[in-house]
Amino acid sequence: MSLLVVGSVALDSVKTPFGKADEVLGGSATYFSVSASYFTTVNVVATVGEDFPDAHLEFLRSRGVDVGGVETGKGKTFRWRGEYSYQLNEAKTLETQLNVFERFAPRVPDRYRQPALVFLANIDPALQRDVLGQVTRPKIVACDTMNFWIEGRQAELKRTLREVDILIVNDGEARQLAGEVNLVKASRAIMGLGPSTVIIKRGEYGALLFSGAKVFAAPAFPLENVFDPTGAGDSFAGGFLGHLAKHPSMDHANLCKAVIFGSVLASFCVEAFSLDRFRTLTRLEIQQRYREFKHLTFFEDLEP
Amino acid sequence: MSLLVVGSVALDSVKTPFGKADEVLGGSATYFSVSASYFTTVNVVATVGEDFPDAHLEFLRSRGVDVGGVETGKGKTFRWRGEYSYQLNEAKTLETQLNVFERFAPRVPDRYRQPALVFLANIDPALQRDVLGQVTRPKIVACDTMNFWIEGRQAELKRTLREVDILIVNDGEARQLAGEVNLVKASRAIMGLGPSTVIIKRGEYGALLFSGAKVFAAPAFPLENVFDPTGAGDSFAGGFLGHLAKHPSMDHANLCKAVIFGSVLASFCVEAFSLDRFRTLTRLEIQQRYREFKHLTFFEDLEP
Repeated sequence: MSLLVVGSVALDSVKTPFGKADEVLGGSATYFSVSASYFTTVNVVATVGEDFPDAHLEFLRSRGVDVGGVETGKGKTFRWRGEYSYQLNEAKTLETQLNVFERFAPRVPDRYRQPALVFLANIDPALQRDVLGQVTRPKIVACDTMNFWIEGRQAELKRTLREVDILIVNDGEARQLAGEVNLVKASRAIMGLGPSTVIIKRGEYGALLFSGAKVFAAPAFPLENVFDPTGAGDSFAGGFLGHLAKHPSMDHANLCKAVIFGSVLASFCVEAFSLDRFRTLTRLEIQQRYREFKHLTFFEDLEP
Repeated sequence: MSLLVVGSVALDSVKTPFGKADEVLGGSATYFSVSASYFTTVNVVATVGEDFPDAHLEFLRSRGVDVGGVETGKGKTFRWRGEYSYQLNEAKTLETQLNVFERFAPRVPDRYRQPALVFLANIDPALQRDVLGQVTRPKIVACDTMNFWIEGRQAELKRTLREVDILIVNDGEARQLAGEVNLVKASRAIMGLGPSTVIIKRGEYGALLFSGAKVFAAPAFPLENVFDPTGAGDSFAGGFLGHLAKHPSMDHANLCKAVIFGSVLASFCVEAFSLDRFRTLTRLEIQQRYREFKHLTFFEDLEP
């Protein structure tokens, strides 16, 4: 089923203990759509500057991503520069140049206006809601956000959350939004704001899914070489919603499978800089790692 | 099968955001043996001071723990005072009074000298090895340690590790011991020092089991109320080795079950101050939570 994402397309400069990459392809909509492209066709609404290399759009197209909604604005592309320490658990932002992203006014092309699923990546919650106003009510709306909006635009964010089915955030964001340290209580508080499902990403520790009264815990895949965590969260969301686009049910068992697919895609994402791992990644490798997740987490039942 | 533990028995004073407890029962050998007592008989080698309340030993006895190896030394009992912030993830030690523990020279009673399993809780690695010298070679030797010994007694610790089958440490300790941030590589480096199996405890994030080339990831149980994390690690070790005492196989599948039992016991431990949760905990509740762990982690296989 059709999947629409609105978010950023960026040029990232990243330094990790294992190397650095300058002005490489990045952005939430980019990671999301390439990750989800292993499951379904993705329509992207975003903006880039006049300096954005055509080769990057070509790469997205080669993955079957529809970039007809990526507008070229006057000026330069959104740029982010950050670095990671040895623990690789948190990016230190060194520089953000919003450029064309500062004036981003998402415009959903006509042919995108009946999406089955929508992912509202981390942008101004008012813009997130504006996008929902441009489309017929999707089957599933998922959304990300960040501390910046939780602190500065909380009322706006809460209005948006009323229209959201699935919130996908990290543990710090969930705690901040709910004003509650305990994640079980925090997820319940967030459900009171609208979403029936809350996914809490915990980086190297995996993810928690709260759907109704049920809980599911997925580990992160223990990798020997993590080169660059940038984009892992959006790749997770892409794998998660990609699976839901193929199997659009909010049934708990189906959401658990989707969380594993999200974890699989995130685990590949971090194996190389930028989106480079996705340049060679195959559907077969995804299935293989899904099965490895099964081995990683399986334990025998108690004797009756 | 018989399980021997050597470690501390202490009086703890703990403050958490949810309350405080003064001079309550604590210590690694205490948490370990009470936790393991749900699976097998545990023999304890430890030392207390003349001021140690008899009611505490009576509680251990009521759990079927053999405290014949707990010697009463001249002086006061080991005391620890600490507090936790809202995140509950790390104790801040405010005061340590070693007292009789400073002169602890473990003496294994005759009737304990043929243990099937031994747990060397976190004490001086020279004393850990000394205990092994007093017993016939056990089927399984497991061991804990901490940054203090890794920094100050590394050569001694490495001598001890040569005789250890299973090292149970937290992630920071594993990284420090191996001199390696990546936990997959760190566990392999630790295996090079002796243990065939490495368990890395990650607090609220669960535990990783590395046995040979296999990996298993267990989440922590998502609890709504965590009152006091003190003793969770030793309760984990108690549940883990308790299961192994009942089913003494180093088979990967059996180790995975043991990790879940460890996680179950740790999850109960933190629900109350001190060992209070164990005063009412039943074997039935343990089995019930084991099954809840299954629901928490289960996801469907891929269609073939």
